[in-house]
Amino acid sequence: MRDFQWSAAEKKVARAAFDLALSREMRSVRHEIEAMLGRSSDPGEVWRIHDYLSDRRQEIDYKYDYRYSVLITVFSRLVQEGWLTEEELDGLGPEKLEVIRRAVALNREEVDEVGNR
Amino acid sequence: MRDFQWSAAEKKVARAAFDLALSREMRSVRHEIEAMLGRSSDPGEVWRIHDYLSDRRQEIDYKYDYRYSVLITVFSRLVQEGWLTEEELDGLGPEKLEVIRRAVALNREEVDEVGNR
Repeated sequence: MRDFQWSAAEKKVARAAFDLALSREMRSVRHEIEAMLGRSSDPGEVWRIHDYLSDRRQEIDYKYDYRYSVLITVFSRLVQEGWLTEEELDGLGPEKLEVIRRAVALNREEVDEVGNR
Repeated sequence: MRDFQWSAAEKKVARAAFDLALSREMRSVRHEIEAMLGRSSDPGEVWRIHDYLSDRRQEIDYKYDYRYSVLITVFSRLVQEGWLTEEELDGLGPEKLEVIRRAVALNREEVDEVGNR
């Protein structure tokens, strides 16, 4: 992937989109542990919640990497996974948006192919 | 501490008391995370819950050691901390109960001394 330059305005859009996706994903973690508590009154459920949180924290720490050198890849993944819409990245330069769009489309094709086998 | 022998009847009492204390302590962990969720709607609260669970799990794993060679010490601590009453250990031999009672009393005196300084 080519080495993009980020303007001050783009950095602002990027930061807001990044934080928005992160807060959505953490809210989904919260909903899941609330659901786990609701589903089971077994005292041992707290360790299953602990295991779940350990896994999610590791995954989220790894995924939310705010270095400009990897940010396009991060955004592509967040759009693919549904944590961000392409519209929420409006304000990034058209080249960056094009790379993200192509990465998302490419991944959807791959997913479809696997699904059609 | 002397090396106690445990009869089949005593092992049954010990196992039930041990499991009772453990389920009480895990229920208290559950209540605490429910309270944490109730107190804060901040998405970051889930990682504070994760930290809390990591600490409690390590402490509980260490504390609930069901080896007969250490069980008297374990029960002394559980009574001291209020997870078990001495009555719930009824059925253990009088020598064992006496050692537990003395350990609890000794620790209470130490706590009182610290408190009175």
